[in-house]
Amino acid sequence: MQRIYLDNAATTKLDSKVLDAMMPFFTEQFGNASAIYSYGRETRMAIEKSRRFIAQAFKTTPSEIFFTSCGTESSNTALQGAVRDLKVEHIITSPIEHHATLYTCQYLASQYNRKLSYVKLSEHGQIDYGDLEKLLQETSGKTLVTLMHANNEIGNMLNLERVSSYCQEYNALFHTDSVQTVGHYPLDLSKLHIDFLSASAHKFHGPKGSGLLYINKNNQIKPSILGGGQERNMRAGTENIANIVGFAKALELAMESFEEDKAYVQALKERLKTKLITAIPNLVLHGDVDGNSLYTILNVGFPMNDSTEMLSMNLDIQGVCVSGGSACTSGAQGGSHVIRNVYPNASVVPIRFSFSKHNTTEEIDRVVELVAGLINKQ
Amino acid sequence: MQRIYLDNAATTKLDSKVLDAMMPFFTEQFGNASAIYSYGRETRMAIEKSRRFIAQAFKTTPSEIFFTSCGTESSNTALQGAVRDLKVEHIITSPIEHHATLYTCQYLASQYNRKLSYVKLSEHGQIDYGDLEKLLQETSGKTLVTLMHANNEIGNMLNLERVSSYCQEYNALFHTDSVQTVGHYPLDLSKLHIDFLSASAHKFHGPKGSGLLYINKNNQIKPSILGGGQERNMRAGTENIANIVGFAKALELAMESFEEDKAYVQALKERLKTKLITAIPNLVLHGDVDGNSLYTILNVGFPMNDSTEMLSMNLDIQGVCVSGGSACTSGAQGGSHVIRNVYPNASVVPIRFSFSKHNTTEEIDRVVELVAGLINKQ
Repeated sequence: MQRIYLDNAATTKLDSKVLDAMMPFFTEQFGNASAIYSYGRETRMAIEKSRRFIAQAFKTTPSEIFFTSCGTESSNTALQGAVRDLKVEHIITSPIEHHATLYTCQYLASQYNRKLSYVKLSEHGQIDYGDLEKLLQETSGKTLVTLMHANNEIGNMLNLERVSSYCQEYNALFHTDSVQTVGHYPLDLSKLHIDFLSASAHKFHGPKGSGLLYINKNNQIKPSILGGGQERNMRAGTENIANIVGFAKALELAMESFEEDKAYVQALKERLKTKLITAIPNLVLHGDVDGNSLYTILNVGFPMNDSTEMLSMNLDIQGVCVSGGSACTSGAQGGSHVIRNVYPNASVVPIRFSFSKHNTTEEIDRVVELVAGLINKQ
Repeated sequence: MQRIYLDNAATTKLDSKVLDAMMPFFTEQFGNASAIYSYGRETRMAIEKSRRFIAQAFKTTPSEIFFTSCGTESSNTALQGAVRDLKVEHIITSPIEHHATLYTCQYLASQYNRKLSYVKLSEHGQIDYGDLEKLLQETSGKTLVTLMHANNEIGNMLNLERVSSYCQEYNALFHTDSVQTVGHYPLDLSKLHIDFLSASAHKFHGPKGSGLLYINKNNQIKPSILGGGQERNMRAGTENIANIVGFAKALELAMESFEEDKAYVQALKERLKTKLITAIPNLVLHGDVDGNSLYTILNVGFPMNDSTEMLSMNLDIQGVCVSGGSACTSGAQGGSHVIRNVYPNASVVPIRFSFSKHNTTEEIDRVVELVAGLINKQ
């Protein structure tokens, strides 16, 4: 059976060119990058070359780029650092952030006795920008705004420029979880007032276990993981050279053919959306799908009944990989906090379809056929 | 020029069989291990199989094994968890621990206002066990002992049984940084009272970025990195499947030929020691080299003069990789806190030679020849 992989927001297939770039560091170039002999310097150079490339791609400086073990670690480090070291007294977030943000904010608010506010959402689960501005106007003390660039379940995109500009106006710190967008969006940090940004390589055909944290040079925070002086004292632990090189290579490949890939993937999303609407009565689209929405994610609510409740499992039997919510919360069936918050009264079965450039129109058509067959046979 | 790599305590070459075991997870088996479809279950099974193998090797249960991004993260998580969640009021450590332990203990003592004691050292940098017992006798409140199993610079090994038994007697928690010994020592956790143990795959021919934390089931701590429910809620972040599989495979290979490899490497260490003593006048051996010492590490103090001060650099020019201190502290020349604490009055240039099964007697002889030539030409 041919597998159809439509869960690219959970993780993507490692690009063979990325693996090729990583391979020398699994074989001959294994020296510890913190060693001072030539053998260590070689790997050090590979790390710094990767850092420079990424900085250039993001239009920022290498000294603001730090490598971590994953996007979750990046967000934890940024949020902890901001609250612990930058005297943040008030955290503003949204109820539909990734748990790496939500749980960390809740922990920090409790641990350090800080105020925690959740910005209101508009109809399609977009941030209510008016409410955000109101919260910023009324805040007292140093404030941190943490909002994700694209929601990992429903694909809603934040207006980065607008939030960035609010944060500048009200002198607030701004962290954005960009795990879903880095590699799928031409980030230009020179034009944005962003203090911290989290990213992860495995969301754009890089390796798992390869995260990145951008820290604007105006912010001096302490590391979350203490020990050796790696990453200029920001992240202790022997450098995972292969994964660092893999991050840069994956970003390079993603940006090389970005416009082309985006158009292609966007068309797949449109095709699936249109065909599903035609095939399935009473289907609803989740999120701001006709507005500011990431081209890689389509979240659909199927009317709840016996056939739809088993839909993702039955699709799995047919070789189709899709998610109910995010992979990180998949254990909790029916428990997507995103859908619950955006559609509190809906009685639907949410399915997230997420795409990559490796998907084909044939796969999309096959999935529609399968979904229609599974639902309409009831 | 043939490179001679004698810095295996910094990092080791990835075993090609380990890479082979990792490869499927870089290519076809890329599913997110937290996804519920079959594709995710495949990778989940690989993770759980790795966990079971490691638990069996350590004579413990899979539910006590957690995968992390490195040994440093493991130690940070254990120490933070113990102090934050297990009501530890007093931390006992030694002045020659790895910085992952030292800095974390200092941070936690300051952050949570806890007492921090450093156990005295005996002549060769071994723990003064009498002093440790005295500290435990006199302690009040919950106490955590954190001592490394083998010192990464001088190779001194802790008497795990003795410390474990003290901790049991005085009802103290015991964390051991076993980064240098896991893969080089037949750990039997069923016979030891250990609460937390840190390990890292790249010290025994596994991948970099692959750590492990053993948490005894009696201890319920919270994660240090918050987010998704990975690792049974102990370590958020998408699982780095390849590195987890790589950890288990590296351990399997290490234990398969452990006795044989140990005898071989021990002989290399003895050969280098004997030949250096003969070749270099006034050379001193650091650590408990004729006592309880790890077979992979030999730390030598060369009498300080113009030729020895440049020794590691000149060896580098000849293709020989050795360390002044640990890789993690190599930026700070002459600044090994281990040597400073054990030999406060010594005026020597310390060089750490550390071995693996891939080294040869020819390499050892060549290094002695080079060292003698560089020093005696003055």
